Amino acid sequence: MSPEKKKFIAVIGGGQCSAQEAKLAEAVGRELARRGAILVCGGLGGVMKAACKGASSEGGTTIGILPGDSRRQANPYVRIPIVTNIGYARNVIVVKSAQAVIAIGGSHGTLSEIAHALQDNTPVIGLNTWSLSRNGQPENSIILAQDAAEAVDKALDLAKN
Amino acid sequence: MSPEKKKFIAVIGGGQCSAQEAKLAEAVGRELARRGAILVCGGLGGVMKAACKGASSEGGTTIGILPGDSRRQANPYVRIPIVTNIGYARNVIVVKSAQAVIAIGGSHGTLSEIAHALQDNTPVIGLNTWSLSRNGQPENSIILAQDAAEAVDKALDLAKN
Amino acid sequence: MSPEKKKFIAVIGGGQCSAQEAKLAEAVGRELARRGAILVCGGLGGVMKAACKGASSEGGTTIGILPGDSRRQANPYVRIPIVTNIGYARNVIVVKSAQAVIAIGGSHGTLSEIAHALQDNTPVIGLNTWSLSRNGQPENSIILAQDAAEAVDKALDLAKN
Amino acid sequence: MSPEKKKFIAVIGGGQCSAQEAKLAEAVGRELARRGAILVCGGLGGVMKAACKGASSEGGTTIGILPGDSRRQANPYVRIPIVTNIGYARNVIVVKSAQAVIAIGGSHGTLSEIAHALQDNTPVIGLNTWSLSRNGQPENSIILAQDAAEAVDKALDLAKN
Repeated sequence: MSPEKKKFIAVIGGGQCSAQEAKLAEAVGRELARRGAILVCGGLGGVMKAACKGASSEGGTTIGILPGDSRRQANPYVRIPIVTNIGYARNVIVVKSAQAVIAIGGSHGTLSEIAHALQDNTPVIGLNTWSLSRNGQPENSIILAQDAAEAVDKALDLAKN
Repeated sequence: MSPEKKKFIAVIGGGQCSAQEAKLAEAVGRELARRGAILVCGGLGGVMKAACKGASSEGGTTIGILPGDSRRQANPYVRIPIVTNIGYARNVIVVKSAQAVIAIGGSHGTLSEIAHALQDNTPVIGLNTWSLSRNGQPENSIILAQDAAEAVDKALDLAKN
Repeated sequence: MSPEKKKFIAVIGGGQCSAQEAKLAEAVGRELARRGAILVCGGLGGVMKAACKGASSEGGTTIGILPGDSRRQANPYVRIPIVTNIGYARNVIVVKSAQAVIAIGGSHGTLSEIAHALQDNTPVIGLNTWSLSRNGQPENSIILAQDAAEAVDKALDLAKN
Repeated sequence: MSPEKKKFIAVIGGGQCSAQEAKLAEAVGRELARRGAILVCGGLGGVMKAACKGASSEGGTTIGILPGDSRRQANPYVRIPIVTNIGYARNVIVVKSAQAVIAIGGSHGTLSEIAHALQDNTPVIGLNTWSLSRNGQPENSIILAQDAAEAVDKALDLAKN
């Protein structure tokens, strides 16, 4: 696949995560790499590390948009560390650099990324993550998936140009 | 009240809003100014403008953290325009510059601010705004209020140092 | 003077400075406050602290755009702390929030602020600060001043709308 | 060369440039790719585009840290577009993501990047670019090179870990 046709997909989730979430994230990373996509993430541990590990095991490219001031903050599976030093404002860059987002579990940082993506009309695929309601009405803007393969399918199908 | 004792409270909400939300935001702004608090917001229209208008009518100080490149982007009731030009990454600065946050209605931008505040353990008081659940379990981190006075009371009580 | 007519002037310079630079910065701050201007700075020590001290002594308003994650990082003379947590990328915000910039001494951080201001066509008044040449040709874009009063005069005269 | 051993080198310079500067930038990009380095730049035209074109012609990896809100802003030789939407505050990220910086010509934006790099003790190699003096004393912190090969040699030799 020529580089310019490759899709950039963000995987977002907690810097700490359960064993089950890590397994899911690793499967998502693997599947993205097999399908020729480039993985974008926040570059740290937990879901980010597991997804990068999966992508790496299939020879995929992994980009880590780091909050801090050093490339050494990146997990060992990040091939392209981007050093921002803008703290959690870097969440916006993770999302804007991707054509679709896959959210796995996650805490409030992940929620901020989901919100920034929805604000930009970037598709968000959710695996065991947040659900939202506004003024008491459920808001179905997060697209649900049951497993890694379905999440990657949907992310690649719905990816923005 | 000596300046150093004044509390900084963010009011967040949509750049467009209903007449009811505007009325609520104006009442919140007024009440904050009466209580000697300094209003921080994103500096644009809708809820932000209404809150600034309310605070202004009581002689309060209003800070607008603007996403764009010009002070002229500020609504007319902003007394201290901060020109960031970092787009919606400025949402993080709105929240970090406040000791508590009052959310009124709002769309995904507001949701990102709520998330950034919760990530920082900054109290979020909600008036007709988002509610959250994670993995199917409600998350009660947004403190509910029924009216402007109650929201301001809670924000001032819970404000971080 | 009505608030909307007040001019926002940045004072930039090292977080550490000589006694002479501190004296100069304090005089600039004092003069800005006497003339009704609002002082914008990076909120830390050295030139920033001295300028805020001077402005404070004349009852002026002082805004500190902080690089870190806490309002407690501000020097004691900052009345309006803005907490960015975006590190030295906040230099851009200091400059964009001002209608003219007064540079006093300074190191590479100050040089970055001078450069960002010149990029935006924001007037830069220099007191014992950097001088520039490009491809061996002097570049006279920094306007020189001999003392605090002259620097403030020029900043207020040349301030952008 | 294993990915983790590759060096990240920024090439900075004007978004518009002379034919001579473009030729120099293209040679720098080519040489960086031949030596296995990864090129980081601001992703736009002029020096950035010429450097990416050179690196691309040798199969190198090119990263473009974009100021705006769309990957379509990148020049056609950027393989990894990073979409920041933080405007010229992204200059800080260009510099922080590199282990050394090569400056070619350039205007005030380039000067801001030189300053941010020097502030971080990141080596700056200059080709026909700015020179600096402080309080009337020349400051020799920019390392001069005479041609593309020398600039790349020095950048790779001096690159930080």
